[in-house]
Amino acid sequence: MPDCLFCQIVAGKIPANVVYEDEHLLAFHDIAPKADTHLLVIPKRHIVNLNDLSDADASLMSHLMLSLPAIARTQNLTGFRTITNTGKEGGQEVFHMHFHILGGDQLPGF
Amino acid sequence: MPDCLFCQIVAGKIPANVVYEDEHLLAFHDIAPKADTHLLVIPKRHIVNLNDLSDADASLMSHLMLSLPAIARTQNLTGFRTITNTGKEGGQEVFHMHFHILGGDQLPGF
Repeated sequence: MPDCLFCQIVAGKIPANVVYEDEHLLAFHDIAPKADTHLLVIPKRHIVNLNDLSDADASLMSHLMLSLPAIARTQNLTGFRTITNTGKEGGQEVFHMHFHILGGDQLPGF
Repeated sequence: MPDCLFCQIVAGKIPANVVYEDEHLLAFHDIAPKADTHLLVIPKRHIVNLNDLSDADASLMSHLMLSLPAIARTQNLTGFRTITNTGKEGGQEVFHMHFHILGGDQLPGF
């Protein structure tokens, strides 16, 4: 998606501080961190949010969920918060699905 | 797990306001809601948190992720926030994996 910020990061057109990459996923530091550690984990393919998923995305989503602990461990986090916002009413701002990984002493949320 | 609050809810030994149930998942209202709508989605099987997952849980986790929008829609939510806390440092309080679905005007987190 040419107008999508995260697609442009995947394509290497916008730089990011990448901490993890594989065939299907990319993880990088949020440029406006809301915690001591704040990563974003995205599918490389453009998916809007959870509402946009179909059964064809099952293996992608299990891979993403099972990869979260390893991605957190790249930042030496064994405990962490994971947030994903679905839709404008859910607080979503970039409409390419992303999972926040948050770690440190003052975590937003609960 | 006999001492696990959520296992006891799954077993019907502690009541809950259930909004969704299938072979693998249970979703119910949080008894101390932190938003206008606050659901908890859990696997029926005792899994501690994301750090406890193995490849054998792949289909469970994709099923859980793909079920979140339908569970949110039981409360007429099309936009919602999803949070899961992993480990004490991540803010986890009940050590049976659970995904919060939050909806409404004042969502905790961001």
